[in-house]
Amino acid sequence: MVVDSISSPTLGETRTYTVLLPRNYDQNPDKRYPVLYLLHGIMDTNEGWYRNGRVKSVMDKLVESGEVCEMIVVTPNAGGNIYEGVWNGYFNMPGWPYEDFFFNEFLPHIESRYRVIGDRAHRAIGGLSMGGGGSTIYGQRHPDMFCAVYAMSALMDLDANGGLPSYGQEKMKIFNRTVREYSTIDFVRRANDETREKLRSIAWFVDCGDDDVLFDVDIAFYQTMRDAGIPCQLRVRDGAHNWEYWNTALYTALPYFTRAFTKETYNQSK
Amino acid sequence: MVVDSISSPTLGETRTYTVLLPRNYDQNPDKRYPVLYLLHGIMDTNEGWYRNGRVKSVMDKLVESGEVCEMIVVTPNAGGNIYEGVWNGYFNMPGWPYEDFFFNEFLPHIESRYRVIGDRAHRAIGGLSMGGGGSTIYGQRHPDMFCAVYAMSALMDLDANGGLPSYGQEKMKIFNRTVREYSTIDFVRRANDETREKLRSIAWFVDCGDDDVLFDVDIAFYQTMRDAGIPCQLRVRDGAHNWEYWNTALYTALPYFTRAFTKETYNQSK
Amino acid sequence: MVVDSISSPTLGETRTYTVLLPRNYDQNPDKRYPVLYLLHGIMDTNEGWYRNGRVKSVMDKLVESGEVCEMIVVTPNAGGNIYEGVWNGYFNMPGWPYEDFFFNEFLPHIESRYRVIGDRAHRAIGGLSMGGGGSTIYGQRHPDMFCAVYAMSALMDLDANGGLPSYGQEKMKIFNRTVREYSTIDFVRRANDETREKLRSIAWFVDCGDDDVLFDVDIAFYQTMRDAGIPCQLRVRDGAHNWEYWNTALYTALPYFTRAFTKETYNQSK
Amino acid sequence: MVVDSISSPTLGETRTYTVLLPRNYDQNPDKRYPVLYLLHGIMDTNEGWYRNGRVKSVMDKLVESGEVCEMIVVTPNAGGNIYEGVWNGYFNMPGWPYEDFFFNEFLPHIESRYRVIGDRAHRAIGGLSMGGGGSTIYGQRHPDMFCAVYAMSALMDLDANGGLPSYGQEKMKIFNRTVREYSTIDFVRRANDETREKLRSIAWFVDCGDDDVLFDVDIAFYQTMRDAGIPCQLRVRDGAHNWEYWNTALYTALPYFTRAFTKETYNQSK
Repeated sequence: MVVDSISSPTLGETRTYTVLLPRNYDQNPDKRYPVLYLLHGIMDTNEGWYRNGRVKSVMDKLVESGEVCEMIVVTPNAGGNIYEGVWNGYFNMPGWPYEDFFFNEFLPHIESRYRVIGDRAHRAIGGLSMGGGGSTIYGQRHPDMFCAVYAMSALMDLDANGGLPSYGQEKMKIFNRTVREYSTIDFVRRANDETREKLRSIAWFVDCGDDDVLFDVDIAFYQTMRDAGIPCQLRVRDGAHNWEYWNTALYTALPYFTRAFTKETYNQSK
Repeated sequence: MVVDSISSPTLGETRTYTVLLPRNYDQNPDKRYPVLYLLHGIMDTNEGWYRNGRVKSVMDKLVESGEVCEMIVVTPNAGGNIYEGVWNGYFNMPGWPYEDFFFNEFLPHIESRYRVIGDRAHRAIGGLSMGGGGSTIYGQRHPDMFCAVYAMSALMDLDANGGLPSYGQEKMKIFNRTVREYSTIDFVRRANDETREKLRSIAWFVDCGDDDVLFDVDIAFYQTMRDAGIPCQLRVRDGAHNWEYWNTALYTALPYFTRAFTKETYNQSK
Repeated sequence: MVVDSISSPTLGETRTYTVLLPRNYDQNPDKRYPVLYLLHGIMDTNEGWYRNGRVKSVMDKLVESGEVCEMIVVTPNAGGNIYEGVWNGYFNMPGWPYEDFFFNEFLPHIESRYRVIGDRAHRAIGGLSMGGGGSTIYGQRHPDMFCAVYAMSALMDLDANGGLPSYGQEKMKIFNRTVREYSTIDFVRRANDETREKLRSIAWFVDCGDDDVLFDVDIAFYQTMRDAGIPCQLRVRDGAHNWEYWNTALYTALPYFTRAFTKETYNQSK
Repeated sequence: MVVDSISSPTLGETRTYTVLLPRNYDQNPDKRYPVLYLLHGIMDTNEGWYRNGRVKSVMDKLVESGEVCEMIVVTPNAGGNIYEGVWNGYFNMPGWPYEDFFFNEFLPHIESRYRVIGDRAHRAIGGLSMGGGGSTIYGQRHPDMFCAVYAMSALMDLDANGGLPSYGQEKMKIFNRTVREYSTIDFVRRANDETREKLRSIAWFVDCGDDDVLFDVDIAFYQTMRDAGIPCQLRVRDGAHNWEYWNTALYTALPYFTRAFTKETYNQSK
């Protein structure tokens, strides 16, 4: 596991990130791997998935059993304590052009620095809460970049009065407003035939607990996808908006990404 | 497993039913058991759960492992091939007063003939599709009778144009119309405080596949329950409207009923 | 699903078999698929896996969700009621050269008749009980033919006094004796370095219930494999020697085979 | 969650412990609860189960869904860094009479301080590794005290040359030797009819990963129990000797304890 950082001209600051490399990465200096961008939630940073989500333990176990292929997992830092004035969010907001940073600086930086295969068929994205919404938005707006999206307890949209309270914090207000502007549900509703066809080329998965505060928007997203004829898996397990749910989600998510990565290769090779 | 029948003055005909007795039922002539009414779907009869659902195999396994308590399972026959003019349905319809038959004749017949404990705390109901809707309606209209309801792929309601086609079959038209009249969702919406309080005394569980044709009404039921402050579990697993889903649902349903049966006793005894 | 038959000079009789083809097999006349040989148990025939094991339902569900790749499933008939004088068994016995039939006649027949990819990397074998033992023996004696073996409740070996009673039936006596001669455990123990290396090229999986009568030999096989340094997965779930166990085993087995098929392609293609 | 300590005359020192109380413990001042003693492994302390095992998260979730009854969970501290000269172990050793402390001082202290029901039918024990062995030994030597034992990755016995290296640390040598003296397998083998009958009154469960270093002794224990006619459940899941395995084990263990607690009450009450 590597914790490193990148200096961003776009954001005007240095951002940390975490990379989980395959166990024998160094012993196979010519091997290239699929890459999974795994996004954290609001108020969290790149460390959450590794500390609380135990990605490394789960990955080691499932790779050993053959259920999961070796892959590189990358978690950028798009957050921190927003009430202390730290920006949070994966999309562009006035003053925080994170989406530009992600696609123009961060992703190229990672993919030149680490031995990823580097094509769409071997690049996937997933995340929880704000990161589940972020994964979905990135999949929608950059369908040529990812072969699969796995959204957990995802912030797919926000009611007019929903979202975390701002407590006077301007960045929180901007965040809530932007979530509505980037509604993943409206995106599907408004998509024309060409866009829908592109969305069909991605493998979509939504995983949300029955007690999750974001249950309704996750269901609405699934129904909108289904009604638009875009295949999407849905699972509702027991649980709420917490790490116990997201840690156990990895047992479905990692084999799912593996299947997506190998499916594409598999079809290409025949 | 016993297949027997009851002559019903209410329905004006003889109806078959199936009873699955605990393995050592005969060796324990003084022992009384909880009872589960397990309802089949439209076009099916009392045999489905035993032939396709393999209730006996699953029950034997889970009782042996201690996950499930011994219970008596009872499946009435409320169906058959509706297009051949056979009535289907658990509620009262003009010409088919099945709900009256169930509570006034069938249930008393079973509970005097077999050694059930016979109180609400040890009586539960569940079922699939039409039987999932039936279980929910019976729970709603007779909350003093059941401690738990488990609805699988449940016909909770029907859109104006939804339902199986009638193909000119009058009984099918009546059935579809009656499902709307007995909407389980409207029931919750219209429930006053007293009724809601009664509904809270039941343990509710909804289990529906992400590819089920009845997905939307099952989700709507769950959301209405949650918004009414009536605790209800929801699980969405992979699958559609078929026996593979319902057979595997038993692994959750039977421990769930067990927990309901023992919870009540457990609380009473302290 | 196709039920067909093959006339065997080796066995001197005609044998039936069942083939489960991918849903869109006919619409994709140029596409070739991986093949899974799925073996039945003693006293059973090619029909068991489809009637009681519900392979088609499970396959449809898991293919739709993306967890399983499309494949052709083939079940030969190597049994029937042995007490009525019908031969059972996958190995060669005096008077029943089934292994010869399988590799010289049956497999070539299938693989010329159906569009299989036809290399080792896309051919796997699995089975239950006698067919779990058969799968393992075939993997051991023909490691160049299969990339993966999944053995359920497998007849890996037999104690001196074990096995079904013969009731004077000679074919049963021969069967029991031959199981001991083809002990899968002794095979691993006696394997030299070269053979062990070949065995390591196969993905092995053993799945056996805690109440299975064959539990001890399955565990002994796993321990022998592990001690010989040959990677092998083991799962012990709740259950005994019955269809409820084998039906639910498919939820692990089919993704496991998928992973094996795509892993090989995946590695070859890079 | 309460972290507290007890001064022990027997051990001649003060020992910490952790207690997890039901969510509404304070609001129900007259209610009494079942109690689960949950034991940690070697080199660990009372904090492990709460920090790495996330007992509280899992408990909250399963209580909310109704799968688990409210209970009090108690973890004593029987360890720490043994290489720094700290005693580890649940049995009596020369210089470390922990079993005496547990039954004569610790358990009475807890059960007078917290509102436990206090009878055998509502007292269970479980644990991981050293604590899985400890749970089993306590169940064997005090069968009148516990209704259920759940042993994870359990140190059931030790080969002549097995165990952690001593690195000259005397306490480690004593520990390894004592594990052999308290072999849970020998205990069952040597048990006379009366003892076996007592062991049958406990619900036993063994849960051990296929890659666990203690796999062989856990299997041997299960086989010995089965051969002695003492019902015992076994599950082998994917995994090794680590927290990811033990955290996920709670999803089976807590409902299992619940079933044991309510079963006893349930049977008593009828």
